[in-house]
Amino acid sequence: MFNRKKISMLTDLYELTMAYVYFKTNENGRAVFNFYIRPTEKRNFFIFAGLYELIKNILEMKFYDEDIEYLKSLNKFSDDFLDYLKKFRFSGNLFAVDEGSIVFPNEPLVQIEAPLVEAQIIETFLINSLQLPILIATKSARCYTVANNKILVDFSLRRTQGFDAGLKVAYSSYIAGFNGTSNILAGELYKIPVFGTMAHSFILAYGDEEKAFKEFAKLYPNDTVFLVDTFNTVEGIKRAVKVIKELGLNKLKGIRIDSGDLVELSKIGREILDMEGFKDSIIFVSGGLNEYKIEKLLREGAKIDGFGVGTELGVSADLPYLDCVYKLAEYRGKPIAKFSKNKTTFPYKKQIYRVYRDGYIHQDTVSHFDEKLEGEPLVKQFIKDGKLVGDIPSISKIRDFTLSQIETLPPNLKDLNNYHKFLPTFTPKIIKTIEELKKKYLS
Amino acid sequence: MFNRKKISMLTDLYELTMAYVYFKTNENGRAVFNFYIRPTEKRNFFIFAGLYELIKNILEMKFYDEDIEYLKSLNKFSDDFLDYLKKFRFSGNLFAVDEGSIVFPNEPLVQIEAPLVEAQIIETFLINSLQLPILIATKSARCYTVANNKILVDFSLRRTQGFDAGLKVAYSSYIAGFNGTSNILAGELYKIPVFGTMAHSFILAYGDEEKAFKEFAKLYPNDTVFLVDTFNTVEGIKRAVKVIKELGLNKLKGIRIDSGDLVELSKIGREILDMEGFKDSIIFVSGGLNEYKIEKLLREGAKIDGFGVGTELGVSADLPYLDCVYKLAEYRGKPIAKFSKNKTTFPYKKQIYRVYRDGYIHQDTVSHFDEKLEGEPLVKQFIKDGKLVGDIPSISKIRDFTLSQIETLPPNLKDLNNYHKFLPTFTPKIIKTIEELKKKYLS
Repeated sequence: MFNRKKISMLTDLYELTMAYVYFKTNENGRAVFNFYIRPTEKRNFFIFAGLYELIKNILEMKFYDEDIEYLKSLNKFSDDFLDYLKKFRFSGNLFAVDEGSIVFPNEPLVQIEAPLVEAQIIETFLINSLQLPILIATKSARCYTVANNKILVDFSLRRTQGFDAGLKVAYSSYIAGFNGTSNILAGELYKIPVFGTMAHSFILAYGDEEKAFKEFAKLYPNDTVFLVDTFNTVEGIKRAVKVIKELGLNKLKGIRIDSGDLVELSKIGREILDMEGFKDSIIFVSGGLNEYKIEKLLREGAKIDGFGVGTELGVSADLPYLDCVYKLAEYRGKPIAKFSKNKTTFPYKKQIYRVYRDGYIHQDTVSHFDEKLEGEPLVKQFIKDGKLVGDIPSISKIRDFTLSQIETLPPNLKDLNNYHKFLPTFTPKIIKTIEELKKKYLS
Repeated sequence: MFNRKKISMLTDLYELTMAYVYFKTNENGRAVFNFYIRPTEKRNFFIFAGLYELIKNILEMKFYDEDIEYLKSLNKFSDDFLDYLKKFRFSGNLFAVDEGSIVFPNEPLVQIEAPLVEAQIIETFLINSLQLPILIATKSARCYTVANNKILVDFSLRRTQGFDAGLKVAYSSYIAGFNGTSNILAGELYKIPVFGTMAHSFILAYGDEEKAFKEFAKLYPNDTVFLVDTFNTVEGIKRAVKVIKELGLNKLKGIRIDSGDLVELSKIGREILDMEGFKDSIIFVSGGLNEYKIEKLLREGAKIDGFGVGTELGVSADLPYLDCVYKLAEYRGKPIAKFSKNKTTFPYKKQIYRVYRDGYIHQDTVSHFDEKLEGEPLVKQFIKDGKLVGDIPSISKIRDFTLSQIETLPPNLKDLNNYHKFLPTFTPKIIKTIEELKKKYLS
């Protein structure tokens, strides 16, 4: 847990040893680095996220006195370099696509244009800042595309990989179609709706399901979702109805089922609730869910109004990391690329042009930043000479934008079960430069 | 990123709605909750970690004014409850096994004994605090058991799931046998050795491998590990040697190979280095490593002195989450258990007794806390009435303890490729209580 803005130190030692050598040898020309995702067959598309938190951190990053003291104690840096770090503020430019955009592998999602030392120092935390939000927004969008407008709630906080992950998951799932989170800190910090009523321990503490339900409903008369599966689910549903009636309440917000055959139990639950006059009561389910299970439950006719999605969302269990990288693309005005087996990096500061057909994404083309092509340019400038350009939109605006982006996904890319390869093409100018650099380096 | 100790709010809304009902109905007796891991075939053992950070956070947790304001804005809590939260400090007891212990599924790793409201409120962040450290310490120990005392360095920061995860990974890998981390914030905060020299972008920025090596070696004459695979690895190794000789340095710390056939290349590298008189220079490798690949490389005769392990360690890629839970075990002096398909919770406040044979763990038995059995009792008290009992050991002491624990692992449990089931037995007293509770609840 951080008590101050320690982002500058959240980096690999080698970023600083390289920066030190650049500094001492005056090798500090204008560099362009390029953040992108390498292709994976596990996802047909990605939702870009994490940009705005990254921007805030870049604008605020600095080294504190005790950081300088610590770095001095390593005996790896001279005093003039430590003085430089003491005054360090990011002075470069940041170009990126909008938060919430549909994006694809190999596309330049964030580009840093800055003196080499600065561009190098921010590498580690830049990648870290983006990876998890992209993973989670993408997995959330996969849930959203199959959930047919049912309620989706992030239940993952206890199983996220650390505290910061808990916040990033709540934020990223919300902008990509979830309706809220159980995480109250995320509710406080990001103004995300929060959800939650009771756990099994609540029933067990009272020892008696009926008493537990009653005490809860008395204090939350219009706002109780009864957890009905502690002992016997069908009995639990009947008991929820009984309690509401006995208390003379006219509203039963809903029930939650956390185990068992959710198709069967939700159908029985719906029947009981309807029969007892609670047609508006919702049936909410949870327990080991993911996008595949949501799709299957709805396909099999489960009578479910909402899903609490926990662990598998919170760690992106089927794809817990992205092969995402931050590569030098241009230095002192010259294009740079690196070649190793099956992996190429892409030279130049770049633009992405998107062409739609019938409202759906049809093709993305990656060009040199100054080339003009048909289509919508996706890359915009967010930081200029170390200062924010324009405003950071509100979370509800970001969410609206993300949902409008999801509308542009061609149906085949929404397929959860099959990989449909969609990659941008690169302009002849870029391709030609790659070939020339290959010749030069590998000859 | 947190600017203050926001741990109290890092929880699920339902913890607070339940706490509210307990508070208003005076249902606040002494409760015992029990944190444990459910069995998985993916791990033969676990290293327990995360305890000391958890303890610090429990001791410091409080609700701040703006948290109370936010909670008030939800219209779910009365003023007297919000006043209670405002004054909230944890007043209970915490029992646990030592940080760094070898542990097994179903064992009570942490037990909270406190008034029900307090024990409930800390659930979410308690689970979150422990899950990732256990996952990472365990995966690190698996690397350590096959690495044959080679150097192991955590390179995962850029791909951990968020900032806090980066710190937890550096800490947990270090106590479980790693030699250090690339993460300088972890170095500063935890006093962990830090490692790192140069990346491919460094070579590409200078455009010329020889010039890049030279500039680096001039500034770090005795401390350079040259990254040799940017263009052609064998040429790179020869160039590293040439640069050191041309600069008249008598020491080449080492080389790093980040791609290609690491068995072949490390053999060639060793040959070149030995031939040129650099028998002490180390060969360090990185790039998509995990415990399986380390084991395989060494088995195939790779001449490797150290491994940089990144992404797959940092997210525990083959097991990115634990089925770990926090269950009510006792309330107002009465044992509690819950039963659902294949899942039972374990009643009572408990002790674990460990019996060794020939220096290896032979059997663990879980008993009621007051039962006296043969063997070493593993559960100790760390917090009493809200106050720390005893001292928190230094990180080097914790690491020594963990490594001594790994020595007690029976050889079959170190097997990476096959599951060997090792679970504790429960005493007749606990078994009998489970049977009685089952009868009572499920009748």
